[in-house]
Amino acid sequence: MNRELQAIISGIKPVSREWRLQAREYLNQLAIPQGSLGELLVLAEQLAAIKETIKPSVHKKAVITMAGDNGVVAEGVSAFPQEVTPQMVHNFVRGGAAVNVLAGVAGAQVFVVDMGVAADLTDLAREEKILSYRISKGTANMAKGPAMTRAQAEQALQSGIEIVGNLVRDGVELLGTGDMGIGNTTPSSAILAVFSGRPVREVTGRGTGISDATLANKVRVIEQAIAINKPDPEDPVDVLAKVGGFEIGGIAGVILGAAYYRVPVVVDGFISTAGALVAKALAPAAVDYMIAAHRSQEYGHRFMLEELGLHPLLDLKLRLGEGTGAALAMNIVEAAAQVISKMLTFEAAGVSGAEA
Amino acid sequence: MNRELQAIISGIKPVSREWRLQAREYLNQLAIPQGSLGELLVLAEQLAAIKETIKPSVHKKAVITMAGDNGVVAEGVSAFPQEVTPQMVHNFVRGGAAVNVLAGVAGAQVFVVDMGVAADLTDLAREEKILSYRISKGTANMAKGPAMTRAQAEQALQSGIEIVGNLVRDGVELLGTGDMGIGNTTPSSAILAVFSGRPVREVTGRGTGISDATLANKVRVIEQAIAINKPDPEDPVDVLAKVGGFEIGGIAGVILGAAYYRVPVVVDGFISTAGALVAKALAPAAVDYMIAAHRSQEYGHRFMLEELGLHPLLDLKLRLGEGTGAALAMNIVEAAAQVISKMLTFEAAGVSGAEA
Repeated sequence: MNRELQAIISGIKPVSREWRLQAREYLNQLAIPQGSLGELLVLAEQLAAIKETIKPSVHKKAVITMAGDNGVVAEGVSAFPQEVTPQMVHNFVRGGAAVNVLAGVAGAQVFVVDMGVAADLTDLAREEKILSYRISKGTANMAKGPAMTRAQAEQALQSGIEIVGNLVRDGVELLGTGDMGIGNTTPSSAILAVFSGRPVREVTGRGTGISDATLANKVRVIEQAIAINKPDPEDPVDVLAKVGGFEIGGIAGVILGAAYYRVPVVVDGFISTAGALVAKALAPAAVDYMIAAHRSQEYGHRFMLEELGLHPLLDLKLRLGEGTGAALAMNIVEAAAQVISKMLTFEAAGVSGAEA
Repeated sequence: MNRELQAIISGIKPVSREWRLQAREYLNQLAIPQGSLGELLVLAEQLAAIKETIKPSVHKKAVITMAGDNGVVAEGVSAFPQEVTPQMVHNFVRGGAAVNVLAGVAGAQVFVVDMGVAADLTDLAREEKILSYRISKGTANMAKGPAMTRAQAEQALQSGIEIVGNLVRDGVELLGTGDMGIGNTTPSSAILAVFSGRPVREVTGRGTGISDATLANKVRVIEQAIAINKPDPEDPVDVLAKVGGFEIGGIAGVILGAAYYRVPVVVDGFISTAGALVAKALAPAAVDYMIAAHRSQEYGHRFMLEELGLHPLLDLKLRLGEGTGAALAMNIVEAAAQVISKMLTFEAAGVSGAEA
């Protein structure tokens, strides 16, 4: 691994146990029956520990939507044609997509990143409507060989880290991940199968809505990609390079960057959580900075959350990606931050406690 | 039942089936894999049908927190002393409670209503910091006789309806319910037991956190209240009067008002949903206007949701009341409204559809 990337990964530290305890003690004094705000209190504790303050702010929010194409679509694994990736990038830029609407509701800015879309997006990049971190015109077909080189995998990770560094310097306090890439549930399932050791059949779902026949083919393609490439679960960059995607690598980089810069990151659904698996494999402490947005309808997502030990905030049968679940969950993160920052304690509010 | 109340109840109509279908057809054209926004689409369809437009607005939001005291606290059913009800009303007015913080995050105004708190709140009412619809200094002890008279029960319902009428005239587009009243999980469990026919033991929980011994006593008290009063499940006003509470009647009134004025209403947790049971028993079509905010940690809440046929938006282990769950869920309702109002269709966005 190149030295720069290694330095970032080594710089990722677990959140402070002392701050966790201090936050918990403070939350127990709020004028509510103890524990009665449930998951909001758990989240408030995490935010306080990450930011090392009992008044954590997550006001300035950004959703990073990583776009890339996947050579494996040549195997017929998706219900949608590859041209939809750049079409949706244009839709994001126009503000008409779900992630734009939901980020708007959350008060988050959307940053669309070309990690390697199989189309010419230089106009959008020149007009600064997207960020260009383009590695190549889509990955290679992983059913025939590695999806990318090891250097490209490291480049994808570093791109995500660099983007986060820039946003943090601009004052962003809460990050969300997102993806766009036709066919990218296929590498995501492959990554999950490799890291979890679960059979491909168990972790592969219908993505955007494929038929039984296409699903059977998708399972076969993933099995073949793993058999041919032999990704080593002990070497996360190897896994990303052989059966990953540029956008997945970018997302993993965003999560590593968030952990390095000590900013909470809301992880979207299936594809984003595949990125989170790569990030955790590289830096186990990165999990401390992750917030699972929602439980995706894509069946294998539950196994990813299990690998990470995360409990999702929402369960609304979403399976869209783009960062939509992350955007939607950001309001709950904001709520948790404000609960610990703004609520009064029993003492300050002059409210009697529970009777002995 | 008095004629005015009867007229409101008769005026509650189911939402338009035509508008539901029209909204569904429109949502299917949005540039996303069909159904991939899950529950947001179901909610968007409901909002469109309630407001009879495919651009429903829920921008102006109000949470109505109904406060009242319950004579049954004399039986030792709660972990907190009765003085906490007025203390928390003061905390709401000061803006330091959870409902204030979460309503703030949702962009909703909080209206605190004195439905019958066992303390003098005239100063707050005079300063217009709360709405005074005070019926009496708390209900009577339902373990010894009816909690209130039939006239008082009707007055509680009409108060909620009147408040909604005023808010709707002020342009409120989305309502949320909330409660404050020490001991009020006890009448809520009683209402659930009467309407569902389930054993009291099954529908009675720990409220703000009572011990095993207090829980056993609480079950006994509810069983006694039902045995003594013999509430008639076919006569919802009778149930409310005999084993209800002023704040629960107020909440039922808010829900009836919402349905009458065709405004969606986000129903908070256990106490609010007890109010929803009363509203549904009076006007089954009122359910069309309800949105279940969350699944409460109070065990019996699941049976209430089952009675109503509602699926909650959130499951965050909340059990606080006040309207906190309703406030937190309002952002998701806003998201659903904006999804249908603002997203582009495949055609408008120039995005290719799924391949055959």
